[in-house]
This record gives sequence, structure tokens and C-alpha cells, in this order.
Amino acid sequence: MRTPICDLLGIDAPIFAFTHCRDVVVEVSKAGGFGVLGLVGFPPERIKEELDWIDARIGDKPYGIDIVIPQKYEGMDADMEPAQLEAMLQSMVPQGHRDFAARLLREHGTPEWPAGEPDMGLLGWTEATARPMLEEALRHPKVRLVANALGTPPQEVIDEIHASGRLVAALCGKVKQGIRHKEAGVDIVIAQGGEGGGHCGEIGSIVLWPQMVDALAPTPVLAAGGVGNGRQVAAALALGCAGVWTGSLWLTVTEADNEPAQKEDLLRATSEDTVRSRAWTGKPCRMIRNDWTEAWEQPENPKPLGMPLQGLVSADAIRRTHRYAGVADTQKVLFNPCGQVIGQIKQIESSKDVVYRLIDEYADAVGRLEALSSEA
Amino acid sequence: MRTPICDLLGIDAPIFAFTHCRDVVVEVSKAGGFGVLGLVGFPPERIKEELDWIDARIGDKPYGIDIVIPQKYEGMDADMEPAQLEAMLQSMVPQGHRDFAARLLREHGTPEWPAGEPDMGLLGWTEATARPMLEEALRHPKVRLVANALGTPPQEVIDEIHASGRLVAALCGKVKQGIRHKEAGVDIVIAQGGEGGGHCGEIGSIVLWPQMVDALAPTPVLAAGGVGNGRQVAAALALGCAGVWTGSLWLTVTEADNEPAQKEDLLRATSEDTVRSRAWTGKPCRMIRNDWTEAWEQPENPKPLGMPLQGLVSADAIRRTHRYAGVADTQKVLFNPCGQVIGQIKQIESSKDVVYRLIDEYADAVGRLEALSSEA
Repeated sequence: MRTPICDLLGIDAPIFAFTHCRDVVVEVSKAGGFGVLGLVGFPPERIKEELDWIDARIGDKPYGIDIVIPQKYEGMDADMEPAQLEAMLQSMVPQGHRDFAARLLREHGTPEWPAGEPDMGLLGWTEATARPMLEEALRHPKVRLVANALGTPPQEVIDEIHASGRLVAALCGKVKQGIRHKEAGVDIVIAQGGEGGGHCGEIGSIVLWPQMVDALAPTPVLAAGGVGNGRQVAAALALGCAGVWTGSLWLTVTEADNEPAQKEDLLRATSEDTVRSRAWTGKPCRMIRNDWTEAWEQPENPKPLGMPLQGLVSADAIRRTHRYAGVADTQKVLFNPCGQVIGQIKQIESSKDVVYRLIDEYADAVGRLEALSSEA
Repeated sequence: MRTPICDLLGIDAPIFAFTHCRDVVVEVSKAGGFGVLGLVGFPPERIKEELDWIDARIGDKPYGIDIVIPQKYEGMDADMEPAQLEAMLQSMVPQGHRDFAARLLREHGTPEWPAGEPDMGLLGWTEATARPMLEEALRHPKVRLVANALGTPPQEVIDEIHASGRLVAALCGKVKQGIRHKEAGVDIVIAQGGEGGGHCGEIGSIVLWPQMVDALAPTPVLAAGGVGNGRQVAAALALGCAGVWTGSLWLTVTEADNEPAQKEDLLRATSEDTVRSRAWTGKPCRMIRNDWTEAWEQPENPKPLGMPLQGLVSADAIRRTHRYAGVADTQKVLFNPCGQVIGQIKQIESSKDVVYRLIDEYADAVGRLEALSSEA
């Protein structure tokens, strides 16, 4: 399944793995794919440690990082240092929202965060907080790609990445956003269908992918949203995509550092168990439906704020539910972003085996198509 | 692109065209695909005329019909004749709903229906009204397939169709519905992704199709929701589907009897212009977003009723907006069901050319995949 993007990045198969787990990045890149570490959620001081860890284990393979600089967010026009910006944003969060979030966790028996550990703060969902992450990443030569998860990166960010000899990718869910990415100089556009996990739009992958390919040619388009097996990779390539960008696939692998209770939740989920909700980040984000997502939908309860304010409301819940997934009823209020494709993922595999499985299944699918053609 | 379903039905290409226009049925079947006439919307006395017309022109080619017997609807347990059932259901519709619908059309300058023409009534959205359509269809030997658009057909309906030597197909948007279809004896399951036009679920095609194929094998699965070009056909077959079930593609063809104003609306639409709304039929149905769909979403306005009650509210609006699409602002309250794939359809083609285009584009897509494989 070699496509021109393989030569561009020096990889064997155009399988991009978005993950928050450094082990997965290493294993996927070593298996011939391309691991991408999502930096949102890491305190800035952890970034160097994570990337050093990857550098020491990945050999001569390349990898990428993913940051979040939204196109629009509260406070984006304020010319402030991160600490100042955060203080301003924190002051904008109604106490009723904080109390409601705290109550949901208390009612589900989720333990408090151990005293003394640093606050997660803005979670990197602003340019001010993403910028230091980027600076650190650009000090690591094996980082060959920087992806922005929401919106077109600011021009100076694109220029800085290009000047360092790296490629820029950006996600989007609408063709007009893809055109904006391309015009700004983005090298690889990731077209994510509405069935995808995390922040997503409403256009289905089967419709979005080929339209994006046609609108942006010859800029390579990666297919995101709904890829969990090699047949889906074949479909993406048949539609003209240069490769696939996958996320849900890596949540349950052996190397993923999610708690066993969270993995069980994901392995049990059907494709109907996800919902597109603003309840965690403030922007529509696909995740497992549970008590938290339902609670923020009820008319009598507070409405989710925008990004990044809702992230300030939920930051404590994100870290606590992630760490204490198996304790009391925490599983029912877990922040558990994933795509509809989660319904296909029924067992724990190693990251390497997943890459090889996709390649094998892809070959089978193409072989089957060839056989159909020859009968015609 | 021959698949086993081609031999089952005696067709050249597994391209199924759902349409309300008899001309399209004839042209698609004659071009090697399989035309399917949607009978909902025709007064029962018109069915014979439509099918006779097709029979006289289609030569020795087969075709299908599509009826709607929902799994659940108001009045389904009432043991009544159609006229009696309709009277009961009509009495359940609040006058405020009727007035609101009438006002919307008046405000958009839509002319009244000419006096003396028969009422559209229940639109065939019940077993009682679908049954006479089926009986008529079974008197036409070139009808080789009966599809049910909502839910598993009642057992006696399946048995009757089988006893006549025909095949039964049924649509669905969830794997568990597909399993129910198969267990009831449905021969061909049509898996429709949430991006599809008309009544649809929420699971994206790229995720739904392969899951349905795996759950139902060896029962053939047709891919619906998002198929508008041959690359999408290749994707569907790569995912294991036996063929494609298309609808939006045929709304704008030369032979489609939609008013020019409606065709213009459809040709202009992007994939972001559709919405999944209960405002016309009572069940979630994807269509072009316009003043009608928006009006039924406003909190101060009446809420859509269930099926088939909302259909009684909208029946007059369906026929009037269809006939008078270009008059005054009627276009803004048009009943215009279509899928997200409508954003790809930018010109009027003949039905035959569409079939041939899909076949050519399919061959190109498979050829491109083969070329990628040989470089590996």
C-alpha cells in the first residue's frame, strides 16, 4: 500500500497512529507506520521527557506530534502570557458549572486528585499553551510532522515548522476548511468524517474523503474517521486518499496506558454507544455516551461552555476519571473519546500486530477487488 | 464489478437505483443496473399504471419495488381497513399542527392543490396501505425484488413474496436490525449509513457496511448512504458489500420528473446543506435544510409528531411543494430528501450515463489500487 506520502516521510505504510501514549508511537513507527503523539493533556514540563523517551527507542524511524490551536476560542485575541490568560479564563467560568462537575464525580465515587500534583490548566487548547509544546518538539529531529487538530495553524506556526524542515498537517471535517489549510501552506490535510473520535464534524467519511481529495489535489489527504481494519484502509485508498489517520484503534492496544477498566469499556462498546458531545471540551467531540455526557444534556443542568472554558470545568474530571477509571462508578463519568469504529475493536492486540493486520487485510481486500474485476 | 448478486438477479452491475420515477427505473435496468421504484407517494390506483408502463419499456430486464412498512407506528395494532385507520389517525392530529403547516406554505406563496384531485392520505407508510401496493406488484412478473424501507417486513409479507419466486430486501442502519432482517428470511440487506438520504440512522457508512457484512455473511449486503461515484462503489466492494444502493444520484438525472427548481436546489447543495429531521415524516429523515425543517425545530412551534401522524400533517405540503417547486418561495419549504453525497452532484446527466460513469470510475479506482499494490 505504498503511496507517495511514504517517500515523503520515509515510512513503509501510510498508517498514521494518533495516540497519547509514547509506547504506541514507538511501536507503530517501528512496524513501518507513523506514530503521532498527541501533546494535549501533558503538562508542558513533561513534553521533553516524553519526546526524549521516544527518541531513545524509535531507532531511525520518524514520528509526529499533534497540538491543538483552535481556529476560534475564548481569549484568542488577548495578548497575554499563558498564566495570565488562564487566570482571565478561570474567572469567566461560572461557579455553578464547577459545582455541577464536582458533584457528578462525587456521586460516582471518583477519588480526589492527590494533593500537591500540578493542575492541568488549559490543557494546551490555545495558541499560548500549544506554542511551548511546539518549541520543544522542534528541538527533536526525529519529529518529522506537526499536526494541528483544530483549525488552520497560524501562519507563523506553519512558517516556523517549514523553516525547520518539517511537514505540517491539519485536521478538518469540511472541504472549505481543507481549502483554507492548503492555501495557508499545510502539506497534508487530514479529512475526518463525523463518525470519527474526538473533535469532529458532521459529514460522513465516505462522502467527505473523495470530495476533499478532489478539491485539494495534488495535496495529499489522509482519511480519518472510521478506519479500524484493512478493508477500511482499502476503501480510503480507493477513494483517492494517500493514507489513513487512525485513533480509536490504539486506545486498547497492549501498550496503551489506559486503565484496564477504560479498555474494558471500549472493548465492550458498540458503534451505537458513541455520542457527539460538547460536554468535555466545549466543541463537538465524539466519545462513549455515559452519565457525564447525558447529564450535560438535561435541560435543568448547566449547558456546556465554549472551548477552552468547558475544558477548565472538566480538566479535573479528565485526569481523575482517567486515573481512577475502575474505582466505584467512575467508569460512568469517564472522559472516553473514540469513534464509531470502536464497535469493531473486540480484543487487545499489540500495536505492531495491529499495523501488520491492517496491511494483511488491505492486501486481501485489494485481492478480492482484483478477482471481481477479472470476472467482469 | 460482477458480484454473486448479479447472477441472482440477472444483471450486469450491482448498482441499485432507488427512485420515484418510472423512467429512471427503465433506463437504469436497461443500462445493466437494477431500477427500484419507490411506491410511497403514489395513490394506490396509480400503481398498476406505473408498473404496466415500466413493463412495456424495460424489455427482458428485471426491476424492483420499494414499499414502507415501518417496524413501529401509531395505529399498527388496530385491526382496521385503510380508510377506517386513516380516519382514526386523522382524528389524532392536533389542529395546531395542521394550521402551522398550512401557514408555512401560505407564507411562502405555495399555490393550493387544484380542487378535485384525490388526497394523498397515509402515503403508504403503514402495512394496511402498503399491502395493496404489494399485491399489485406481485402481478407484474418483471418485478424481481421487493424492498422494505423501514424495519423487517411482517413474516406473512416475506413468505408471500418468496412464494411468488421473488427476493426480499430490507434497509437498516444498525447491525442488530440487519440480524433481525436475516433471521426473518430477508434475502438482501441494505445497510444505510447516517449520511444517506431519506430515513436513516446515525452510524457512518464506512463503519456500518463492513460490520453488517461480517455479521450477516453469507447474506449479501448492499451499501447505501454516500455512493455517488465509482470510487465510492469500489470502497463499498472493498469493504465486502455485494453492491450499492443509491438514491440521491437519480434526483437530478434527465429522466427524473422533479421540477427544474428542485433540481437546481439539489445541484447547488453542498454536503453540509442536509439535515436529519423529523419534520416531514415523523422519523429522522435526511433532506435539504430549509425554512420548513428549521421552523419545526424552533421551541415556540409545534413539535413533529410520530410516523404516520406527521405524514398526515405534511401530506398536502409534500405534493404542493413538489408540484410548485419554482413558484414564489416554495423552494424554501420543499420536501427535498437526499443524502450528503448530493454535494458531489453538480450536473444533469442521463440515467444511462450515470450507470456507465460509475462503472468506468470503479474500474479506474480498482486499477489505481492495483498499481499501488504492485509498487509495494
